[in-house]
Amino acid sequence: MSPASDTARGRLAIIAGSGFLPSYVAEAAKSAGEDPLIIALKNETDRSWEGFEHAIVGVGDFAAIDRMLDSNRIDRVVMSGAVRRRPEWREVRPTLKTLASIPSTIRTLLSGGDDTVLRMVIGLIEKNGRRVIGVQEIAPDLLAAIGPLDAIKPSAEDVKDIARAGAAADALGRLDVGQGAVSVGGRIVALEGVEGTDGMLQRVADLRAAGRISKRRRGVLVKLCKPQQDLRADLPSIGISTIENASRAGLAGVAIEAGRALILDRPAVISAAREAGIFVCGLDRGLPSWGLE
Amino acid sequence: MSPASDTARGRLAIIAGSGFLPSYVAEAAKSAGEDPLIIALKNETDRSWEGFEHAIVGVGDFAAIDRMLDSNRIDRVVMSGAVRRRPEWREVRPTLKTLASIPSTIRTLLSGGDDTVLRMVIGLIEKNGRRVIGVQEIAPDLLAAIGPLDAIKPSAEDVKDIARAGAAADALGRLDVGQGAVSVGGRIVALEGVEGTDGMLQRVADLRAAGRISKRRRGVLVKLCKPQQDLRADLPSIGISTIENASRAGLAGVAIEAGRALILDRPAVISAAREAGIFVCGLDRGLPSWGLE
Repeated sequence: MSPASDTARGRLAIIAGSGFLPSYVAEAAKSAGEDPLIIALKNETDRSWEGFEHAIVGVGDFAAIDRMLDSNRIDRVVMSGAVRRRPEWREVRPTLKTLASIPSTIRTLLSGGDDTVLRMVIGLIEKNGRRVIGVQEIAPDLLAAIGPLDAIKPSAEDVKDIARAGAAADALGRLDVGQGAVSVGGRIVALEGVEGTDGMLQRVADLRAAGRISKRRRGVLVKLCKPQQDLRADLPSIGISTIENASRAGLAGVAIEAGRALILDRPAVISAAREAGIFVCGLDRGLPSWGLE
Repeated sequence: MSPASDTARGRLAIIAGSGFLPSYVAEAAKSAGEDPLIIALKNETDRSWEGFEHAIVGVGDFAAIDRMLDSNRIDRVVMSGAVRRRPEWREVRPTLKTLASIPSTIRTLLSGGDDTVLRMVIGLIEKNGRRVIGVQEIAPDLLAAIGPLDAIKPSAEDVKDIARAGAAADALGRLDVGQGAVSVGGRIVALEGVEGTDGMLQRVADLRAAGRISKRRRGVLVKLCKPQQDLRADLPSIGISTIENASRAGLAGVAIEAGRALILDRPAVISAAREAGIFVCGLDRGLPSWGLE
């Protein structure tokens, strides 16, 4: 038990998917006096988790996750990182309590949109007094603020690309497909699907190299929360790799939703953006022109 | 002059972009007694055009196109095939009459959505009594009809994927981004951007191989006309390569909008689909369940 915990409070668990986010959340939790139990998802988690109590479980192994949450007196669960693979049905191990709702659970897992799956997983975790909480409750410093992150600001042309890509990302989110879109010179050139942001940016770089996207217009990546999404899971996030890939794709900058998107390793993002000469800024969805004018 | 032309009627020109469509249109026009002049776009056209009177011009060279249309007494123009590359501004050669509207022409060409660009190009062509006509007016047999093309029909699960991908393709079209979407097990996994249908299908195949799309659900490609698009240009089309790539991506079938999408080389498409065991069907956008139930 961590010294910070008292008898009235249980322990925090972090379900860790892929990417860098889970590490930042775990470190932030430790700094806040928590003693997090890491439940790392097999084939998704990217680090060894040395220094943290941890277990590695299959994505569909709800029975094991349920057992761990119970036996460790977990009362709060943070879900972090991407789950790139959906489990195949033979990997899904239901808990006794969820058995009744099979096969609807399996159906949802295999074929629902991301939001549908998240709602179902949250439902499976939230019982016995357990709550699923958002990353931002453990690591609020990760949230993007309104406006430019550093000295480089979007130009008037970039603001137009932000509006165009923002409208596309909004529509994409409503369809529960993805969170990101790229506009170059007012033209949407790529929408994010299952391939993820880095995959999409690689595509933009390839299309640019092939002359199918103007080399004279830079363009912008916008990532927004899906309007209907649960803020306790899968907030859009950017990190150094986003900046590096945006730069390789020839973009002028990256814009994300303020208060509802995460910036991982902010100092490194700032220096990578400065080096690449690209802007990073937070958007206020509630304001005209996204709060940029 | 072709024997079919009379003094009251001018000649037909076919502006030929990339892909197989321009060939089919040219052959169909010849069969209909026309003597088409082929204006093949440099870096886009895929064939030699032997056997047809033809010239190769740059995509942005409106002056040359205008001169050819005038000196050949062209009164009808068909635009066919994809234009993958937008011209860089230094390649744009305006005509005297369009000079006045520069730089708005250049701005549109370099950065407008596809529809905006098409409207502009149509405006540039339609003067001196010339009309831009649709491919379907020259080669009506290319249009898809409602229902399955052959014996293989979409399953109940496929019909759900068609509805989901259809809704996504519709939204995508309204955004003037693209015409195609892929749904697998009720989940949208890819939306078509500048990369085109074959590029998107390759991505689906890659994501499937990487385990990021279920291997147990097949899924469907849907291509629709953009709701607001001019039917005289850029109708969605499928051909053998679409079938082959859909099959490689593990899809159960391909659905396109009846009456507003083209099937190139229908006998070859039918036999390729039969060999791959996938369905091809035409959708009626005006009916519930797209006319499939």
